[in-house]
Amino acid sequence: MRHFTHLKDYTIDELNAIIDEAVVLKKAPASRSSALAGRSLAFCFMNPSLRTQVSFSAGTASLGGNPIVLNMGSGGTWGMEALEGVVMDGTAAEHLKEAVPVLGRMCAAIGLRSFPAGKSWAEDKREDALSAFTKYSTVPVVNMESASGHPCQALADLMTIREKMNPKKKNFLLSWAPHVKPLPMAVPNSSVEMASMAGMNVTIARPEGYDLDPEVMARVKKNCEANGTELNVTADPQTAFDGQHVVYGKSWGSLAEYGKPPSADPAFRAKWTISSEKMRRTSDALFMHCLPVRRNLVVNDDVLDGPWSVVVDEAENRLHTAKAVLLHVLNLNSTRRLQETLK
Amino acid sequence: MRHFTHLKDYTIDELNAIIDEAVVLKKAPASRSSALAGRSLAFCFMNPSLRTQVSFSAGTASLGGNPIVLNMGSGGTWGMEALEGVVMDGTAAEHLKEAVPVLGRMCAAIGLRSFPAGKSWAEDKREDALSAFTKYSTVPVVNMESASGHPCQALADLMTIREKMNPKKKNFLLSWAPHVKPLPMAVPNSSVEMASMAGMNVTIARPEGYDLDPEVMARVKKNCEANGTELNVTADPQTAFDGQHVVYGKSWGSLAEYGKPPSADPAFRAKWTISSEKMRRTSDALFMHCLPVRRNLVVNDDVLDGPWSVVVDEAENRLHTAKAVLLHVLNLNSTRRLQETLK
Amino acid sequence: MRHFTHLKDYTIDELNAIIDEAVVLKKAPASRSSALAGRSLAFCFMNPSLRTQVSFSAGTASLGGNPIVLNMGSGGTWGMEALEGVVMDGTAAEHLKEAVPVLGRMCAAIGLRSFPAGKSWAEDKREDALSAFTKYSTVPVVNMESASGHPCQALADLMTIREKMNPKKKNFLLSWAPHVKPLPMAVPNSSVEMASMAGMNVTIARPEGYDLDPEVMARVKKNCEANGTELNVTADPQTAFDGQHVVYGKSWGSLAEYGKPPSADPAFRAKWTISSEKMRRTSDALFMHCLPVRRNLVVNDDVLDGPWSVVVDEAENRLHTAKAVLLHVLNLNSTRRLQETLK
Repeated sequence: MRHFTHLKDYTIDELNAIIDEAVVLKKAPASRSSALAGRSLAFCFMNPSLRTQVSFSAGTASLGGNPIVLNMGSGGTWGMEALEGVVMDGTAAEHLKEAVPVLGRMCAAIGLRSFPAGKSWAEDKREDALSAFTKYSTVPVVNMESASGHPCQALADLMTIREKMNPKKKNFLLSWAPHVKPLPMAVPNSSVEMASMAGMNVTIARPEGYDLDPEVMARVKKNCEANGTELNVTADPQTAFDGQHVVYGKSWGSLAEYGKPPSADPAFRAKWTISSEKMRRTSDALFMHCLPVRRNLVVNDDVLDGPWSVVVDEAENRLHTAKAVLLHVLNLNSTRRLQETLK
Repeated sequence: MRHFTHLKDYTIDELNAIIDEAVVLKKAPASRSSALAGRSLAFCFMNPSLRTQVSFSAGTASLGGNPIVLNMGSGGTWGMEALEGVVMDGTAAEHLKEAVPVLGRMCAAIGLRSFPAGKSWAEDKREDALSAFTKYSTVPVVNMESASGHPCQALADLMTIREKMNPKKKNFLLSWAPHVKPLPMAVPNSSVEMASMAGMNVTIARPEGYDLDPEVMARVKKNCEANGTELNVTADPQTAFDGQHVVYGKSWGSLAEYGKPPSADPAFRAKWTISSEKMRRTSDALFMHCLPVRRNLVVNDDVLDGPWSVVVDEAENRLHTAKAVLLHVLNLNSTRRLQETLK
Repeated sequence: MRHFTHLKDYTIDELNAIIDEAVVLKKAPASRSSALAGRSLAFCFMNPSLRTQVSFSAGTASLGGNPIVLNMGSGGTWGMEALEGVVMDGTAAEHLKEAVPVLGRMCAAIGLRSFPAGKSWAEDKREDALSAFTKYSTVPVVNMESASGHPCQALADLMTIREKMNPKKKNFLLSWAPHVKPLPMAVPNSSVEMASMAGMNVTIARPEGYDLDPEVMARVKKNCEANGTELNVTADPQTAFDGQHVVYGKSWGSLAEYGKPPSADPAFRAKWTISSEKMRRTSDALFMHCLPVRRNLVVNDDVLDGPWSVVVDEAENRLHTAKAVLLHVLNLNSTRRLQETLK
């Protein structure tokens, strides 16, 4: 049994094989409609979601399965304890040591979204909830975004890039952007890790104090060295756009001042908001964003509504890659091999 | 592609054709069980719901599809921005310009419930959310109740009337009723518009200051003139019941004092609560209400539990008309034509 | 039509027949995948749930049906009135006299979870909501936990016991346990009623003031007399474990001081927490608990993680018995009879 929780557990060939499956599914979305017949899958959300919830729900249903969305810790169910040995006299009414195996008895696979709490990066980085899920689960676990990464988003991102270009030796820019909140680093982490695995030159443009986690950067560096590609980090959000083939816009909170929102200073915002002026410096780059995106704060209307934007294609690919991930972890991804056999 | 958002976009023949489909589905509810196989439909609720949620969920499932219920802006997902050009530095985390096309990539159709905010009728009437959904959607949009109308309820209402009588030249009374809140006008608007389209004489009994929106009334007047039927508005909640064939009870808030609850004066309430005494003045009228209804405030127990009430039949018809609307907007409503062919 | 709401409405033979069906379903879970095809079932939750929600959802789906989970009174829908003759000018927007028949028109069966309010046992015991559901429903109602009982849990419990032993003349201990809240008595009530019906000797270990409802105890006493088994109630949480074959751990609130949490005194807690020392006094007993369970407060880690615990098996059996209950109330439980015919 294999979980799908972190990009680092997979090779680029394995990720591309999952994407190959998604490509087949995208062409013939109804072709595997009974793969999950009679089976339920549990999608556990400790935080809100739109694309993730709809993509896994619709994907499960299109494969014949029954999606069960559980909003944990708010409304539907109670809070969950993740740590061992605790005397549970606080607010958590159930331990994941029971809840996760129980879900595994009733469901074929489990997805988990668990955002960082935003108080201590050292604590958040432990990913207590996700770790407990993978530790206790007897069925495959899919990470639907944790503190450190969002591998399902990265799969959809790479699929979208592959639809437009061969990523090898192309230029990928992750550009930090303003926001009213200190957002999680999961998406920026996974986006640069994915780009480096796919053989792209990686540039990160961010203000001082907004460096990504050193462990992530070490893996990105290693990938770039192995692929013979470049890795640059810059604080200049103009020249960074020069010659880029993919611009990935994203805001995230500072590690140095963890949990503190970015500056709301208008000049600082104006400097970092992604504009059509910046996009014109690129080599006709794709503009990508995981969504949701705050218009005219993260990125201007004329970029999102302009020729560069592939954000809706990217979101659609969440559906196809979600299906491919589910088939992968359930050892059902035979579509591609079957079709190859038939040729 | 055609949305189903406002009665005024449809002719009475088109509405009756959808109801004809619902009548066929009601007789053989399991007959089209694979029409939506493998497809998901997104039902977006910005406000609570029971009948609408269950009817569209059960209806979708009985056609083989997968209903995805999204509670937007509370719990499951975040708040949505509907207006163009906004700098999104407030509470809304996503623009409908992204969210709606994304839903369209994953789902075959989209339903939206969006109540008025209750602060300004001029603002509410713009129906910013519904307008954004229809503007940005690449798949059909169904209005599951907006500020100005509730066309799905009107379909179920007309179906229920048709089951009991030929509506032409029959007498339809919309009777205002007391409440603790200033309720939306969507249902009363749609009920009189539907009745006037169906060729019924229309009477509206309401206290002074509780007139419906002039634009709605202008359409109702035009329909009545075209059909040669009568349109009366009265403040006398006794004589209004004389000779009626259908009594539609409903509370709504005042346009004149927008957002202010109706008077709680016991004499005022007693005057307007729908009673068996009033119903006995009718020509054995049906008593209709969209539900939920507050017993002994809007209408007395002896009416709801008496021979006049068809409120549960009316609610059941929400299911059959929901299915017919989905088949209609998805161009799948062939049941009736198929059956006509077979005759 | 028959509801499944209280154990006392069923004989032990009838309960065992439902469990027999569950045993068949557990062996071949996919064998009845179209029994509920095209049909929706409404699961109404006035309180949170994990196992109940997932077991009924997954169970319904594995039988081909569509589960509709409704969180009543929080988020999705509004508050419901259960009492007759009320002037509804308070917070409840709908009467169950409408809502329940409407659900019955759209769904094949209805489940209800409605916890006690915890202010007055006399009021809670009336089970106003559940009573209204069974009174007004035109389709079968399943009790997914009410103030007085949790019969679906009891079915899964008896199934689990049957998997390990023939319950007749075996020793069953219900052991009270500490907690931070005054929990409902539904599970302890149903557990001892079920054990007494199944022909087990029943011991209840609880602090003074924590006796179960006299009506429940009267039924347990009558069952034990009819079966020639013993019934003991003790305040000694050590000797109570001697020679037991099943230990059912559970906290519940005091009837004497209704709504007041149990003492948080460390010595009192230490006395009543279920420990491996206590379990070693048993005759290799199963340790059972309905979950969720607070570790190291209700029961220590070394019991839950030790050889005694069957809590996850017990939870899994919620799925199989949920399916069997649905087939039972819908008169579809032919699997077993069919298989017997084939032999």
